[in-house]
Amino acid sequence: MPGGPRIITLFSGGMDSAAALFQCLEKYGRESVLALSFRYPSKHNVHELGAARNILGYLGPEAPPHRIMDMTSCFGGSKSHLLRNGGEIPDGHYAADNMKLTVVPGRNLIFLSVAAGLAESLGAEKICIAAHHGDSHIYPDCREPFLRAADETIALSTEGRVRLAAPFAGMNKSEIAAQGKRLGVPFALTRSCYKSRQKPCGRCGACTERREALASIGLVE
Amino acid sequence: MPGGPRIITLFSGGMDSAAALFQCLEKYGRESVLALSFRYPSKHNVHELGAARNILGYLGPEAPPHRIMDMTSCFGGSKSHLLRNGGEIPDGHYAADNMKLTVVPGRNLIFLSVAAGLAESLGAEKICIAAHHGDSHIYPDCREPFLRAADETIALSTEGRVRLAAPFAGMNKSEIAAQGKRLGVPFALTRSCYKSRQKPCGRCGACTERREALASIGLVE
Repeated sequence: MPGGPRIITLFSGGMDSAAALFQCLEKYGRESVLALSFRYPSKHNVHELGAARNILGYLGPEAPPHRIMDMTSCFGGSKSHLLRNGGEIPDGHYAADNMKLTVVPGRNLIFLSVAAGLAESLGAEKICIAAHHGDSHIYPDCREPFLRAADETIALSTEGRVRLAAPFAGMNKSEIAAQGKRLGVPFALTRSCYKSRQKPCGRCGACTERREALASIGLVE
Repeated sequence: MPGGPRIITLFSGGMDSAAALFQCLEKYGRESVLALSFRYPSKHNVHELGAARNILGYLGPEAPPHRIMDMTSCFGGSKSHLLRNGGEIPDGHYAADNMKLTVVPGRNLIFLSVAAGLAESLGAEKICIAAHHGDSHIYPDCREPFLRAADETIALSTEGRVRLAAPFAGMNKSEIAAQGKRLGVPFALTRSCYKSRQKPCGRCGACTERREALASIGLVE
Protein backbone atom coordinates (compact mmCIF):
# COMPACT_ATOMS: atom_id res chain seq x y z
CA MET A 1 0.00 0.00 0.00
CA PRO A 2 2.65 2.53 -1.08
CA GLY A 3 0.24 5.44 -1.42
CA GLY A 4 -1.82 4.48 1.61
CA PRO A 5 -5.41 3.17 1.57
CA ARG A 6 -8.22 4.92 -0.29
CA ILE A 7 -10.89 3.44 1.95
CA ILE A 8 -10.91 2.28 5.56
CA THR A 9 -13.69 -0.19 6.28
CA LEU A 10 -14.87 -1.00 9.79
CA PHE A 11 -14.48 -4.73 10.19
CA SER A 12 -15.84 -6.35 13.33
CA GLY A 13 -15.71 -9.94 12.09
CA GLY A 14 -19.53 -10.12 11.85
CA MET A 15 -21.36 -11.07 8.67
CA ASP A 16 -22.37 -7.51 7.73
CA SER A 17 -18.92 -5.97 8.03
CA ALA A 18 -17.44 -8.99 6.24
CA ALA A 19 -19.81 -8.38 3.32
CA ALA A 20 -18.83 -4.69 3.36
CA LEU A 21 -15.15 -5.64 3.32
CA PHE A 22 -15.60 -7.98 0.36
CA GLN A 23 -17.55 -5.27 -1.47
CA CYS A 24 -14.75 -2.76 -0.84
CA LEU A 25 -12.19 -5.27 -2.11
CA GLU A 26 -14.23 -5.83 -5.28
CA LYS A 27 -14.68 -2.12 -5.87
CA TYR A 28 -11.30 -0.72 -4.86
CA GLY A 29 -8.82 -3.66 -4.94
CA ARG A 30 -6.88 -4.90 -1.95
CA GLU A 31 -4.09 -2.30 -2.35
CA SER A 32 -6.58 0.47 -1.62
CA VAL A 33 -8.40 -1.03 1.37
CA LEU A 34 -7.58 -1.04 5.08
CA ALA A 35 -9.67 -3.25 7.38
CA LEU A 36 -10.07 -1.58 10.78
CA SER A 37 -11.14 -3.51 13.87
CA PHE A 38 -11.60 -2.28 17.42
CA ARG A 39 -10.71 -3.86 20.72
CA TYR A 40 -13.36 -2.78 23.21
CA PRO A 41 -14.91 -4.36 26.26
CA SER A 42 -17.93 -6.11 24.75
CA LYS A 43 -18.55 -9.66 25.86
CA HIS A 44 -18.07 -11.04 22.35
CA ASN A 45 -15.20 -8.81 21.23
CA VAL A 46 -12.49 -11.42 21.61
CA HIS A 47 -14.49 -13.82 19.43
CA GLU A 48 -15.25 -11.09 16.86
CA LEU A 49 -11.56 -10.26 16.56
CA GLY A 50 -10.76 -13.95 16.17
CA ALA A 51 -13.36 -14.15 13.39
CA ALA A 52 -11.90 -11.06 11.73
CA ARG A 53 -8.46 -12.67 11.69
CA ASN A 54 -9.87 -15.97 10.38
CA ILE A 55 -11.65 -14.23 7.51
CA LEU A 56 -8.47 -12.38 6.54
CA GLY A 57 -6.57 -15.66 6.80
CA TYR A 58 -9.12 -17.22 4.44
CA LEU A 59 -8.38 -14.44 1.95
CA GLY A 60 -4.67 -15.24 2.16
CA PRO A 61 -2.66 -13.12 -0.29
CA GLU A 62 -5.87 -11.33 -1.29
CA ALA A 63 -6.37 -9.99 2.25
CA PRO A 64 -6.01 -6.25 2.77
CA PRO A 65 -3.89 -4.85 5.61
CA HIS A 66 -5.59 -5.09 9.00
CA ARG A 67 -5.34 -2.71 11.91
CA ILE A 68 -6.77 -3.27 15.39
CA MET A 69 -7.19 -0.15 17.53
CA ASP A 70 -7.56 -0.51 21.26
CA MET A 71 -10.60 1.52 22.36
CA THR A 72 -10.96 -0.12 25.76
CA SER A 73 -10.42 3.05 27.76
CA CYS A 74 -13.05 4.98 25.75
CA PHE A 75 -15.79 2.76 27.16
CA GLY A 76 -14.66 2.86 30.78
CA GLY A 77 -17.79 4.75 31.86
CA SER A 78 -20.24 3.12 29.45
CA LYS A 79 -23.34 1.28 30.52
CA SER A 80 -24.69 -1.52 28.34
CA HIS A 81 -25.57 -5.17 28.69
CA LEU A 82 -23.35 -5.76 25.67
CA LEU A 83 -20.29 -4.88 27.77
CA ARG A 84 -18.46 -7.17 30.12
CA ASN A 85 -19.47 -5.07 33.14
CA GLY A 86 -23.14 -5.03 32.08
CA GLY A 87 -26.08 -7.33 32.80
CA GLU A 88 -27.17 -10.46 30.94
CA ILE A 89 -27.59 -10.37 27.15
CA PRO A 90 -31.32 -10.77 26.52
CA ASP A 91 -32.61 -13.52 24.26
CA GLY A 92 -35.05 -12.92 21.47
CA HIS A 93 -35.52 -10.97 18.30
CA TYR A 94 -33.94 -7.58 17.65
CA ALA A 95 -37.36 -6.02 17.31
CA ALA A 96 -38.01 -6.73 20.96
CA ASP A 97 -37.57 -3.76 23.23
CA ASN A 98 -35.32 -5.59 25.67
CA MET A 99 -32.67 -5.75 22.95
CA LYS A 100 -32.24 -2.01 23.58
CA LEU A 101 -30.26 -3.07 26.61
CA THR A 102 -27.48 -3.98 24.17
CA VAL A 103 -27.09 -0.45 22.80
CA VAL A 104 -23.61 0.87 23.65
CA PRO A 105 -24.01 4.65 23.96
CA GLY A 106 -22.00 6.45 21.29
CA ARG A 107 -20.32 3.33 19.94
CA ASN A 108 -20.68 3.90 16.20
CA LEU A 109 -19.95 7.60 16.48
CA ILE A 110 -16.78 6.88 18.46
CA PHE A 111 -15.68 4.23 15.97
CA LEU A 112 -16.45 6.49 12.99
CA SER A 113 -14.62 9.44 14.54
CA VAL A 114 -11.48 7.44 15.15
CA ALA A 115 -11.68 5.93 11.66
CA ALA A 116 -12.14 9.39 10.13
CA GLY A 117 -9.11 10.72 12.01
CA LEU A 118 -7.02 7.79 10.85
CA ALA A 119 -8.28 8.19 7.28
CA GLU A 120 -7.29 11.84 7.20
CA SER A 121 -3.86 11.04 8.59
CA LEU A 122 -3.30 8.26 6.02
CA GLY A 123 -4.78 10.20 3.11
CA ALA A 124 -7.78 7.86 2.66
CA GLU A 125 -10.82 9.54 1.17
CA LYS A 126 -13.53 7.27 2.57
CA ILE A 127 -14.52 5.27 5.59
CA CYS A 128 -17.12 2.53 5.33
CA ILE A 129 -19.56 1.15 7.89
CA ALA A 130 -21.90 -1.83 7.44
CA ALA A 131 -24.77 -0.36 9.50
CA HIS A 132 -28.06 -1.54 8.03
CA HIS A 133 -31.75 -0.81 8.12
CA GLY A 134 -32.59 -4.02 10.00
CA ASP A 135 -30.73 -2.71 13.05
CA SER A 136 -32.25 0.74 12.90
CA HIS A 137 -35.29 -0.03 15.03
CA ILE A 138 -33.10 -0.66 18.07
CA TYR A 139 -29.86 1.20 17.37
CA PRO A 140 -30.13 4.95 16.73
CA ASP A 141 -26.55 4.97 15.43
CA CYS A 142 -27.53 2.64 12.56
CA ARG A 143 -30.28 4.88 11.19
CA GLU A 144 -29.94 6.76 7.92
CA PRO A 145 -30.44 10.26 9.44
CA PHE A 146 -27.60 9.53 11.88
CA LEU A 147 -25.36 8.23 9.10
CA ARG A 148 -26.08 11.30 6.93
CA ALA A 149 -25.33 13.67 9.82
CA ALA A 150 -22.15 11.76 10.68
CA ASP A 151 -21.02 12.04 7.05
CA GLU A 152 -21.61 15.79 7.09
CA THR A 153 -19.77 16.19 10.40
CA ILE A 154 -16.80 14.17 9.18
CA ALA A 155 -16.71 16.17 5.95
CA LEU A 156 -16.68 19.44 7.93
CA SER A 157 -14.03 18.11 10.30
CA THR A 158 -11.76 17.19 7.38
CA GLU A 159 -12.54 20.05 4.99
CA GLY A 160 -14.13 17.50 2.68
CA ARG A 161 -11.14 15.17 2.53
CA VAL A 162 -12.96 12.23 4.16
CA ARG A 163 -16.52 11.04 3.53
CA LEU A 164 -18.60 8.26 5.03
CA ALA A 165 -19.93 5.38 2.94
CA ALA A 166 -22.77 3.29 4.39
CA PRO A 167 -23.61 0.99 1.48
CA PHE A 168 -26.09 -1.13 3.46
CA ALA A 169 -27.94 1.73 5.16
CA GLY A 170 -31.13 1.03 3.21
CA MET A 171 -30.83 -2.77 3.16
CA ASN A 172 -31.93 -5.49 5.54
CA LYS A 173 -29.77 -8.36 6.74
CA SER A 174 -31.13 -10.83 4.19
CA GLU A 175 -30.20 -8.50 1.36
CA ILE A 176 -26.71 -8.18 2.84
CA ALA A 177 -26.48 -11.96 3.07
CA ALA A 178 -27.42 -12.25 -0.61
CA GLN A 179 -24.80 -9.66 -1.51
CA GLY A 180 -22.23 -11.45 0.65
CA LYS A 181 -23.04 -14.75 -1.02
CA ARG A 182 -22.41 -13.23 -4.43
CA LEU A 183 -19.10 -11.84 -3.19
CA GLY A 184 -17.96 -15.17 -1.70
CA VAL A 185 -18.06 -14.21 1.99
CA PRO A 186 -17.18 -17.28 4.14
CA PHE A 187 -20.14 -16.83 6.48
CA ALA A 188 -19.16 -19.82 8.60
CA LEU A 189 -16.08 -17.88 9.73
CA THR A 190 -18.05 -14.80 10.82
CA ARG A 191 -19.21 -14.18 14.39
CA SER A 192 -22.58 -12.75 15.41
CA CYS A 193 -23.47 -13.97 18.93
CA TYR A 194 -23.36 -11.27 21.60
CA LYS A 195 -22.54 -13.60 24.46
CA SER A 196 -19.15 -14.22 25.99
CA ARG A 197 -18.75 -17.91 25.34
CA GLN A 198 -16.97 -19.18 22.27
CA LYS A 199 -19.90 -21.21 20.95
CA PRO A 200 -22.78 -19.03 19.68
CA CYS A 201 -25.86 -19.31 21.90
CA GLY A 202 -28.38 -19.44 19.05
CA ARG A 203 -30.91 -17.47 21.10
CA CYS A 204 -29.79 -13.83 21.41
CA GLY A 205 -30.94 -11.17 18.96
CA ALA A 206 -27.74 -11.36 16.97
CA CYS A 207 -27.98 -15.15 16.62
CA THR A 208 -31.68 -14.94 15.74
CA GLU A 209 -31.21 -12.37 12.98
CA ARG A 210 -28.15 -14.20 11.62
CA ARG A 211 -30.09 -17.47 11.38
CA GLU A 212 -32.99 -15.81 9.54
CA ALA A 213 -30.69 -13.95 7.13
CA LEU A 214 -28.60 -17.01 6.32
CA ALA A 215 -31.72 -19.15 5.91
CA SER A 216 -32.96 -16.65 3.32
CA ILE A 217 -29.95 -17.55 1.14
CA GLY A 218 -30.27 -21.26 1.82
CA LEU A 219 -27.63 -21.58 4.53
CA VAL A 220 -28.38 -23.51 7.71
CA GLU A 221 -25.71 -23.66 10.42
CA MET B 1 -23.29 13.82 42.43
CA PRO B 2 -26.00 11.35 43.46
CA GLY B 3 -28.04 11.73 40.27
CA GLY B 4 -25.01 11.98 38.02
CA PRO B 5 -23.82 15.10 36.18
CA ARG B 6 -26.11 17.20 34.00
CA ILE B 7 -23.23 18.54 31.90
CA ILE B 8 -19.83 17.14 30.99
CA THR B 9 -17.36 19.85 30.02
CA LEU B 10 -14.17 19.13 28.11
CA PHE B 11 -11.35 20.45 30.25
CA SER B 12 -7.85 20.46 28.80
CA GLY B 13 -6.29 22.77 31.38
CA GLY B 14 -6.00 25.60 28.84
CA MET B 15 -7.47 29.06 29.40
CA ASP B 16 -10.51 28.55 27.14
CA SER B 17 -11.67 25.28 28.65
CA ALA B 18 -11.00 26.68 32.14
CA ALA B 19 -13.32 29.60 31.35
CA ALA B 20 -15.92 27.13 30.03
CA LEU B 21 -15.62 25.08 33.21
CA PHE B 22 -16.11 28.12 35.43
CA GLN B 23 -19.10 29.16 33.33
CA CYS B 24 -20.64 25.69 33.72
CA LEU B 25 -20.05 25.83 37.48
CA GLU B 26 -21.76 29.21 37.67
CA LYS B 27 -24.71 28.07 35.57
CA TYR B 28 -25.25 24.51 36.82
CA GLY B 29 -23.53 24.27 40.22
CA ARG B 30 -20.68 21.91 41.03
CA GLU B 31 -22.99 18.96 41.80
CA SER B 32 -24.15 18.95 38.19
CA VAL B 33 -20.80 19.30 36.41
CA LEU B 34 -18.20 16.71 35.41
CA ALA B 35 -14.83 17.95 34.11
CA LEU B 36 -13.48 15.57 31.46
CA SER B 37 -9.83 15.57 30.41
CA PHE B 38 -8.08 13.36 27.89
CA ARG B 39 -4.70 11.71 27.96
CA TYR B 40 -3.41 11.66 24.39
CA PRO B 41 0.03 11.84 22.83
CA SER B 42 0.41 15.58 22.25
CA LYS B 43 3.70 17.11 23.27
CA HIS B 44 2.07 19.34 25.86
CA ASN B 45 -0.53 16.90 27.20
CA VAL B 46 1.30 16.08 30.42
CA HIS B 47 1.56 19.81 31.21
CA GLU B 48 -2.10 20.40 30.28
CA LEU B 49 -3.22 17.64 32.62
CA GLY B 50 -1.03 19.08 35.37
CA ALA B 51 -2.66 22.47 34.81
CA ALA B 52 -6.12 20.88 34.90
CA ARG B 53 -5.35 19.31 38.26
CA ASN B 54 -3.91 22.56 39.60
CA ILE B 55 -7.01 24.52 38.61
CA LEU B 56 -9.26 21.98 40.31
CA GLY B 57 -6.99 22.09 43.36
CA TYR B 58 -7.39 25.88 43.38
CA LEU B 59 -11.16 25.40 43.47
CA GLY B 60 -10.80 23.12 46.50
CA PRO B 61 -14.21 22.04 47.83
CA GLU B 62 -15.86 23.94 44.98
CA ALA B 63 -14.19 21.72 42.38
CA PRO B 64 -16.42 19.38 40.36
CA PRO B 65 -15.53 15.70 39.91
CA HIS B 66 -12.75 15.16 37.37
CA ARG B 67 -12.32 12.26 34.99
CA ILE B 68 -9.30 11.63 32.78
CA MET B 69 -9.86 9.24 29.87
CA ASP B 70 -6.88 7.66 28.18
CA MET B 71 -7.20 8.16 24.42
CA THR B 72 -3.60 7.35 23.59
CA SER B 73 -4.39 4.37 21.40
CA CYS B 74 -6.92 6.33 19.32
CA PHE B 75 -4.15 8.52 17.95
CA GLY B 76 -1.70 5.72 17.14
CA GLY B 77 -1.94 6.38 13.40
CA SER B 78 -2.34 10.16 13.55
CA LYS B 79 -0.02 12.59 11.86
CA SER B 80 0.46 16.06 13.34
CA HIS B 81 3.30 18.24 14.56
CA LEU B 82 1.33 18.63 17.77
CA LEU B 83 1.95 14.97 18.58
CA ARG B 84 5.06 13.53 20.14
CA ASN B 85 5.88 11.57 16.98
CA GLY B 86 5.43 14.64 14.76
CA GLY B 87 7.79 17.39 13.58
CA GLU B 88 8.68 20.66 15.31
CA ILE B 89 5.93 22.95 16.59
CA PRO B 90 6.08 26.05 14.38
CA ASP B 91 6.48 29.50 15.91
CA GLY B 92 4.26 32.41 15.02
CA HIS B 93 0.66 33.52 14.99
CA TYR B 94 -2.28 31.15 14.55
CA ALA B 95 -3.29 32.92 11.39
CA ALA B 96 -0.10 31.72 9.73
CA ASP B 97 -0.54 28.76 7.45
CA ASN B 98 2.26 26.77 9.04
CA MET B 99 0.17 26.52 12.21
CA LYS B 100 -1.96 24.09 10.20
CA LEU B 101 0.77 21.57 10.92
CA THR B 102 -0.61 21.42 14.46
CA VAL B 103 -4.06 20.21 13.40
CA VAL B 104 -4.67 16.72 14.83
CA PRO B 105 -7.01 15.00 12.36
CA GLY B 106 -10.35 14.21 13.96
CA ARG B 107 -9.34 15.29 17.45
CA ASN B 108 -12.38 17.30 18.50
CA LEU B 109 -14.80 14.85 16.88
CA ILE B 110 -13.15 11.95 18.70
CA PHE B 111 -13.23 13.82 22.02
CA LEU B 112 -16.86 14.89 21.52
CA SER B 113 -17.93 11.37 20.55
CA VAL B 114 -16.40 9.85 23.64
CA ALA B 115 -17.86 12.61 25.82
CA ALA B 116 -21.30 12.08 24.26
CA GLY B 117 -21.14 8.35 24.91
CA LEU B 118 -20.14 8.95 28.52
CA ALA B 119 -22.88 11.57 28.91
CA GLU B 120 -25.54 9.17 27.68
CA SER B 121 -24.28 6.43 30.00
CA LEU B 122 -24.28 8.78 33.00
CA GLY B 123 -27.59 10.46 32.14
CA ALA B 124 -26.04 13.89 31.45
CA GLU B 125 -28.00 15.99 28.99
CA LYS B 126 -25.19 18.17 27.67
CA ILE B 127 -21.55 18.17 26.74
CA CYS B 128 -19.62 21.42 26.47
CA ILE B 129 -16.59 22.36 24.37
CA ALA B 130 -14.66 25.64 24.50
CA ALA B 131 -13.93 25.79 20.75
CA HIS B 132 -13.88 29.43 19.65
CA HIS B 133 -13.98 31.57 16.56
CA GLY B 134 -10.36 32.67 16.89
CA ASP B 135 -9.21 29.11 16.20
CA SER B 136 -11.56 28.57 13.30
CA HIS B 137 -9.21 29.88 10.61
CA ILE B 138 -6.79 27.01 11.23
CA TYR B 139 -8.87 24.28 12.85
CA PRO B 140 -11.89 22.99 10.89
CA ASP B 141 -13.15 21.24 14.02
CA CYS B 142 -13.52 24.58 15.82
CA ARG B 143 -15.82 26.15 13.19
CA GLU B 144 -19.50 26.79 13.81
CA PRO B 145 -20.75 24.63 10.91
CA PHE B 146 -18.76 21.70 12.31
CA LEU B 147 -20.06 22.30 15.81
CA ARG B 148 -23.66 22.49 14.56
CA ALA B 149 -23.28 19.27 12.57
CA ALA B 150 -21.63 17.52 15.53
CA ASP B 151 -24.54 18.59 17.75
CA GLU B 152 -27.04 17.17 15.26
CA THR B 153 -25.09 13.92 14.95
CA ILE B 154 -24.86 13.51 18.71
CA ALA B 155 -28.57 14.24 19.08
CA LEU B 156 -29.39 11.57 16.47
CA SER B 157 -27.00 9.10 18.09
CA THR B 158 -28.69 9.57 21.47
CA GLU B 159 -32.32 10.04 20.37
CA GLY B 160 -32.07 13.61 21.61
CA ARG B 161 -30.86 12.74 25.10
CA VAL B 162 -27.50 14.53 24.70
CA ARG B 163 -26.81 17.89 23.05
CA LEU B 164 -23.62 19.84 22.42
CA ALA B 165 -23.04 23.28 23.92
CA ALA B 166 -20.30 25.45 22.40
CA PRO B 167 -20.74 28.71 24.29
CA PHE B 168 -17.63 30.34 22.81
CA ALA B 169 -18.21 29.32 19.18
CA GLY B 170 -18.84 32.92 18.11
CA MET B 171 -16.29 34.56 20.43
CA ASN B 172 -12.62 35.33 20.08
CA LYS B 173 -9.98 34.59 22.68
CA SER B 174 -9.99 38.10 24.15
CA GLU B 175 -13.72 37.88 24.77
CA ILE B 176 -13.19 34.52 26.47
CA ALA B 177 -10.43 36.06 28.60
CA ALA B 178 -12.81 38.83 29.67
CA GLN B 179 -15.49 36.28 30.52
CA GLY B 180 -12.92 34.19 32.42
CA LYS B 181 -11.78 37.24 34.37
CA ARG B 182 -15.34 37.94 35.45
CA LEU B 183 -15.70 34.32 36.54
CA GLY B 184 -12.44 34.32 38.53
CA VAL B 185 -10.43 31.92 36.37
CA PRO B 186 -6.85 31.62 37.75
CA PHE B 187 -5.20 32.18 34.36
CA ALA B 188 -1.70 31.79 35.79
CA LEU B 189 -2.49 28.13 36.46
CA THR B 190 -3.66 27.40 32.88
CA ARG B 191 -1.39 25.96 30.18
CA SER B 192 -1.35 27.04 26.55
CA CYS B 193 2.11 26.33 25.06
CA TYR B 194 2.16 23.49 22.50
CA LYS B 195 5.75 22.51 23.13
CA SER B 196 6.98 19.63 25.25
CA ARG B 197 9.01 21.49 27.82
CA GLN B 198 7.51 22.55 31.12
CA LYS B 199 8.23 26.25 30.70
CA PRO B 200 6.07 27.89 27.99
CA CYS B 201 8.13 28.94 24.95
CA GLY B 202 6.40 32.29 24.43
CA ARG B 203 6.73 31.96 20.65
CA CYS B 204 4.37 29.26 19.35
CA GLY B 205 0.88 30.10 18.12
CA ALA B 206 -0.71 29.06 21.40
CA CYS B 207 1.65 31.26 23.44
CA THR B 208 1.21 34.17 21.04
CA GLU B 209 -2.59 34.11 21.16
CA ARG B 210 -2.59 33.63 24.93
CA ARG B 211 -0.35 36.66 25.43
CA GLU B 212 -2.56 38.85 23.22
CA ALA B 213 -5.76 37.70 24.91
CA LEU B 214 -4.44 38.17 28.44
CA ALA B 215 -2.99 41.56 27.52
CA SER B 216 -6.46 42.62 26.40
CA ILE B 217 -7.68 42.17 29.98
CA GLY B 218 -4.62 43.81 31.48
CA LEU B 219 -2.68 40.67 32.39
CA VAL B 220 1.03 40.38 31.54
CA GLU B 221 2.81 37.13 32.38
